[in-house]
Amino acid sequence: MLQIIEVRKNVLAKNDELAAANRALFAREGLTAVNFVSSPGAGKTTLLVKTLTDLADRYRCAVVEGDQRTANDAERIAATGAPVVQINTLSACHLDASMVARGLTALDLAGLDYLFIENVGNLVCPAGYDLGEKMKVVVMSTTEGEDKPVKYPKMFRVSAALLLTKTDLLPHLDFDADKAVDCALQVNPALAVFRVSAKTGEGFDAWYDWLAAQRG
Amino acid sequence: MLQIIEVRKNVLAKNDELAAANRALFAREGLTAVNFVSSPGAGKTTLLVKTLTDLADRYRCAVVEGDQRTANDAERIAATGAPVVQINTLSACHLDASMVARGLTALDLAGLDYLFIENVGNLVCPAGYDLGEKMKVVVMSTTEGEDKPVKYPKMFRVSAALLLTKTDLLPHLDFDADKAVDCALQVNPALAVFRVSAKTGEGFDAWYDWLAAQRG
Repeated sequence: MLQIIEVRKNVLAKNDELAAANRALFAREGLTAVNFVSSPGAGKTTLLVKTLTDLADRYRCAVVEGDQRTANDAERIAATGAPVVQINTLSACHLDASMVARGLTALDLAGLDYLFIENVGNLVCPAGYDLGEKMKVVVMSTTEGEDKPVKYPKMFRVSAALLLTKTDLLPHLDFDADKAVDCALQVNPALAVFRVSAKTGEGFDAWYDWLAAQRG
Repeated sequence: MLQIIEVRKNVLAKNDELAAANRALFAREGLTAVNFVSSPGAGKTTLLVKTLTDLADRYRCAVVEGDQRTANDAERIAATGAPVVQINTLSACHLDASMVARGLTALDLAGLDYLFIENVGNLVCPAGYDLGEKMKVVVMSTTEGEDKPVKYPKMFRVSAALLLTKTDLLPHLDFDADKAVDCALQVNPALAVFRVSAKTGEGFDAWYDWLAAQRG
């Protein structure tokens, strides 16, 4: 199921109240909402496709996709069989709570275990917008610089977990994964850190265990 | 030479007038200003370090570095011997013309051929801010998705050239470079496109020829 909603600039208002309303709705429905944030291209969609596929037998999940334009990501998600709604933010550089609220009207929340929200690819602005989620998860790939967490600290400070993706590429990169993790923990010592590769499956079991522990 | 300037939120005003003033200053000094934009981790700093090193005998260049925090990038630029000023935007997600104007006061512009401005890593917001540059150059890496140009079209529409970086990684990636270039040209048919690898040197001669042709 794939639906597309276009959001105009004038809905960017009263974010915190709307986030609280989203949060109350999630609590009523007994679902856990996770807001995935990262640079463009860090691998959020690939991560979600694998997670949805691997967890399909265990949990019922739905997805809200945010992009400035196109439904490309939602089409990839829809191929897993998970219900998904695409929000096109047009000029806006992040999802806000009102966009998510509008997207939720297109989804059947009854019986869901998880709602995964894939934010617009942007390591800066989405850090400031509460969508009503239980936690943010920041995704960073091994092809970015190790010092991204100290250069863009707010995103790493407001997130509960870091997924370091594309670890299968490490042999081909001058990237020190330990240094990247150190930078992240320096900014937020409470971060749960997972080193993962959607290609080899490395690290996904630990990620799923953590995700399961966040329920309720 | 490395200097650090911290810019507070309240300087975000009158961007277009200040951009025009920057542009007039660049014209008086006879220098060509280029604004490099991309996602975080696309390789802007590595590209600049190589460009500055290779062109050191031909041109006099200086650099304005934008990051939310840290002087890490400016330190890498300073190691090439080029004058550089670091602007820390703190909460702001892009450079604006006033920040650049303030940075310029720390640089000696006399006799410069090029001023390279490395914007904050963000594929969305910097697209809307004129800094007074002659052109924007968008940098995209082979480790991002091919469809980034259609998902974030404004940045590709306002740029004069696209540098597709990290081509040395192509054998290890499921990335169709032709498809990425097609997506970019679909959004902006006038884009000059260069496929480059700072590791192997591929594509840099063509990039330097194009850069030379933009002077004056």
